[in-house]
Amino acid sequence: MSDVYDRLADLAKKRGFYWVSYEIYGGLAGFYDFGPVGVLLKRNIVEEWLRTFVYAFDFMVEVETPVINPQVVFKASGHEDHFTDPIVVCTKCGRVYRADHLVKEATGLNVEGASLEEIYRVIVEKNVRCPECGGELSKPENALLLFKTEIGPYKGQLGYLRPELAQGMFVNFKTLLNVARNRLPLGIAQIGRVARNEISPRQGLLRLREFTIMELEFFHDPSESVREVEEYLPYVEGETLNIVTADSRERGVEEPVTVTVRESIDKGIVKNPWLAFWMGVGNKFVRSLGIPPDKTRFFEKLPHERAHYSAQTFDQEVYSTKFGWIEVAGYAYRTDYDLKRHMDYSGVDMFYFKKYEKPVEVVKKRVIVDYKVLAERLGERFQEALKALQGRSQEELYEELSSKGYIEVGDLKIGREFFTLREEKSLVHGEKIVPHVVEPSYGVERLLYVLLEYSYNVVEDRVVLKLPPRLAPFHVAVFPLMAGSREEHKAMVSLARGIAQSLRERGLRVVYDEEGSIGRRYARADEIGIPYAVTVDHQSLQDNTVTIRFRDTRRQVRVGVGELHDTILKYLRDNTMI
Amino acid sequence: MSDVYDRLADLAKKRGFYWVSYEIYGGLAGFYDFGPVGVLLKRNIVEEWLRTFVYAFDFMVEVETPVINPQVVFKASGHEDHFTDPIVVCTKCGRVYRADHLVKEATGLNVEGASLEEIYRVIVEKNVRCPECGGELSKPENALLLFKTEIGPYKGQLGYLRPELAQGMFVNFKTLLNVARNRLPLGIAQIGRVARNEISPRQGLLRLREFTIMELEFFHDPSESVREVEEYLPYVEGETLNIVTADSRERGVEEPVTVTVRESIDKGIVKNPWLAFWMGVGNKFVRSLGIPPDKTRFFEKLPHERAHYSAQTFDQEVYSTKFGWIEVAGYAYRTDYDLKRHMDYSGVDMFYFKKYEKPVEVVKKRVIVDYKVLAERLGERFQEALKALQGRSQEELYEELSSKGYIEVGDLKIGREFFTLREEKSLVHGEKIVPHVVEPSYGVERLLYVLLEYSYNVVEDRVVLKLPPRLAPFHVAVFPLMAGSREEHKAMVSLARGIAQSLRERGLRVVYDEEGSIGRRYARADEIGIPYAVTVDHQSLQDNTVTIRFRDTRRQVRVGVGELHDTILKYLRDNTMI
Repeated sequence: MSDVYDRLADLAKKRGFYWVSYEIYGGLAGFYDFGPVGVLLKRNIVEEWLRTFVYAFDFMVEVETPVINPQVVFKASGHEDHFTDPIVVCTKCGRVYRADHLVKEATGLNVEGASLEEIYRVIVEKNVRCPECGGELSKPENALLLFKTEIGPYKGQLGYLRPELAQGMFVNFKTLLNVARNRLPLGIAQIGRVARNEISPRQGLLRLREFTIMELEFFHDPSESVREVEEYLPYVEGETLNIVTADSRERGVEEPVTVTVRESIDKGIVKNPWLAFWMGVGNKFVRSLGIPPDKTRFFEKLPHERAHYSAQTFDQEVYSTKFGWIEVAGYAYRTDYDLKRHMDYSGVDMFYFKKYEKPVEVVKKRVIVDYKVLAERLGERFQEALKALQGRSQEELYEELSSKGYIEVGDLKIGREFFTLREEKSLVHGEKIVPHVVEPSYGVERLLYVLLEYSYNVVEDRVVLKLPPRLAPFHVAVFPLMAGSREEHKAMVSLARGIAQSLRERGLRVVYDEEGSIGRRYARADEIGIPYAVTVDHQSLQDNTVTIRFRDTRRQVRVGVGELHDTILKYLRDNTMI
Repeated sequence: MSDVYDRLADLAKKRGFYWVSYEIYGGLAGFYDFGPVGVLLKRNIVEEWLRTFVYAFDFMVEVETPVINPQVVFKASGHEDHFTDPIVVCTKCGRVYRADHLVKEATGLNVEGASLEEIYRVIVEKNVRCPECGGELSKPENALLLFKTEIGPYKGQLGYLRPELAQGMFVNFKTLLNVARNRLPLGIAQIGRVARNEISPRQGLLRLREFTIMELEFFHDPSESVREVEEYLPYVEGETLNIVTADSRERGVEEPVTVTVRESIDKGIVKNPWLAFWMGVGNKFVRSLGIPPDKTRFFEKLPHERAHYSAQTFDQEVYSTKFGWIEVAGYAYRTDYDLKRHMDYSGVDMFYFKKYEKPVEVVKKRVIVDYKVLAERLGERFQEALKALQGRSQEELYEELSSKGYIEVGDLKIGREFFTLREEKSLVHGEKIVPHVVEPSYGVERLLYVLLEYSYNVVEDRVVLKLPPRLAPFHVAVFPLMAGSREEHKAMVSLARGIAQSLRERGLRVVYDEEGSIGRRYARADEIGIPYAVTVDHQSLQDNTVTIRFRDTRRQVRVGVGELHDTILKYLRDNTMI
């Protein structure tokens, strides 16, 4: 299985899954095209995600926002400062490298997250040089990984392509809260393209400069989350999470603990109950792609490995025979960081008004100063006193007067007689809070890759792609047993075409094929993972039945043409493979 | 209905259809966000398009390619030279205007497609000035409407964001032809984001800087198209197209002719049979969005209005009460322009090998020269003769020898005896051709806008969005008649929630609502076009039936809970509204 990656790449090109973009112009690193099979697989992954993460819940809404953003968005988000990778340039040949990767390759030392100075120290000490020409390397500097553009064709304003979807949810939080009739918790999901200007992308589908993300920002009141999550925990009842904690990593242990979602909350392994809930949902989701439970885990990031906005991060990882553990999703506890930043940069209120169940009576202490009399008494020192009094809150003045009987301003003591003290009662109906956010974020192309790796099987020298039937690009293949010029063959062709067309019209995705032997046609269908193959044979012409062949077992059953559509629909719903 | 646009915009913001992007930062012209309802509507439009244009046909495949392209792609495509708009800059205040629009507004003269010199002449003659400050305008120049970026974070290469999807299909033509086992015709579809750096986008959803396109490049052999299209014409049998021809426009007449697809081909109105076929499909598609047949037409562009790659273009237009006729799709006959350009720029073969039904016997005439004897005979004049002989083809030599009996080189006559003449027969199995392309290209946001405009109704002061049921964002609303604290109400809530959850799990998109009076809840559902509202009432608790209320008629029927899912599914399939 060591060359599964290359064999998959061959199959992917030949049968239309994916390939490097712009091949006729020599290819472009970090960009991939998706062909007929790949597009359908991606669409099915997206739909499975929507079903699992969005359509299933009342509190979920979707949004779609632009790829191009004005500069201010990524200034506010902190990306302009933090979304960088360290680079070094060869002073001789001009090649550019990602500094930490180069150091790792040359010395084996892990300097990810280290400062530019530290990296440079290692480069000098270990005499790391350009691997291509042996030239000396520049001092490391941070390269911004945002793609830049200009909005407006003539002296436009600076803009960036988004590297994540999240800011689209944050800048729209208030509008969407309003659409959702001001209720928390509120989950905002988005599916869309993002772009990251990677220095030297390698690893095929795993590190792209442009790719598709499925992301969810879940806004909630952190003080209510323990209570609120209870209603939804039954949804993830059976899930057990494999978690490699940061603590254990720091002790040099990468063995996961296996806990239920509830245990992960109770034991304090996951700091936010909603984050734990979504990890449970994510566990379910990845399993629905056919990944065995022991081949997925949550890998907690160490503090210096986390993005600047996160208080706790887990990578959801899947084990790849080619690459080892690879990240398919990030689960981050973004706290109130982003909303607060956008409040600061926009000046726009992003609060949620948390209404109390019952109004609360609040007593406000007020102090009224008799300025007129005070001015007469203090004369030229009045201005000094005024300034000092106005610098203190009413509560402070109230406290000082109650305890000392006067207000001290430098050497002045201003007596009780200049003030009126009052207690005012009022009803408070709620308070303004900034919601906290947890975020699951999936990369579609990485999911596609692991889905394929786990589906890829070689049976008697032929590829059989054992995709979960519901995720297969085409639901069913339809074949006439023979397609020659004899009358009987013509009748088979005509019946098979009619069946294909009628299944298509009722919403199934169908491949019709009459070219070559039936064995070759089965093989072609197996290669792209079509779960069910329908064959029109001699008997079909007598009794209007057809055979359905199951991809993984090659078993066949015979059904009437009239029941065919409903039978296949039921198979798909249940992922049947008998 | 004159303010339908503004009223729609209000509804769109309030209920989560769409709004201007980056509102908290003052908004950004040409960018829109789509909320929960808008995302689902867009998704439904896309799915309807896929069903109509892609899934229905054997010869269709899909592809997905990057938004970011290296420069060479849009150099080859001609966009770098032609994808421009003329701008003028105010020399006083620096404001930038689209020159032809400004001239139109100031003078009423239509200079679209005119040269920069002509536009400038009008500006000077008519003394057109800056509408904001009265300043003098610069000479017009062409501004490139491609968004630029740099690929690679450090001294990267120039790249462009794609303004259309088509190049993704052209650069991949050979790979996809191979995936489709070398068969023509071959349609390649793509759905994705594009970006156009418009000078001053206005008109809301109609002129965006970033939007979603559904595009189809249909590759075919033009010499076979009349024959090949026959098999597919039955699919568009009933379609009648309203076409405003360029001829008639040049005569100043904007009245359409109404013809069948076949007539449009036979009468030579549409130059390419496949273009006519797809216009028929597009006609069907737009009608499925609820646009009346007399409110859509195909408007042929005049030669100077066409894009640089097109031999014939029709805009498919829909009549808007707000904007008049607006383009929702372009239908272009791109010929072999793009493939040839990419062949030139990449040096890569883009031919289709057209296999003949039977191999053709070809006779090749060959002439063998006896150079040795010729050299002996001609002596120092041999080099001169050699050069002349090598400059002619074997066919030419054969002809001259056959007719004259010698070859003339200046004053030399080289006799028949120096040559051996031969006829060689061979079998030719086919020829290399560059396929031609027709392209239908739809803008999703414009379709969304006209869909909403045609659905928008006010009934007794309340908005009812009469969307075709299949396109509605949510399929069904579920309400308990009352949701108070009485036991009976609690039972209604519990039953209603259970129904909502079970419909959701079976794939329907459901809104559950228990807030406010039943009348207000119906009204809220009507506003976002939910076609069917299910209510759990007193009787439901007795006999396990519920009412289904139809949005447009407010009629109600009562069905058993057990049949509810299948009933609604059937309604959706048939777009039922009784």
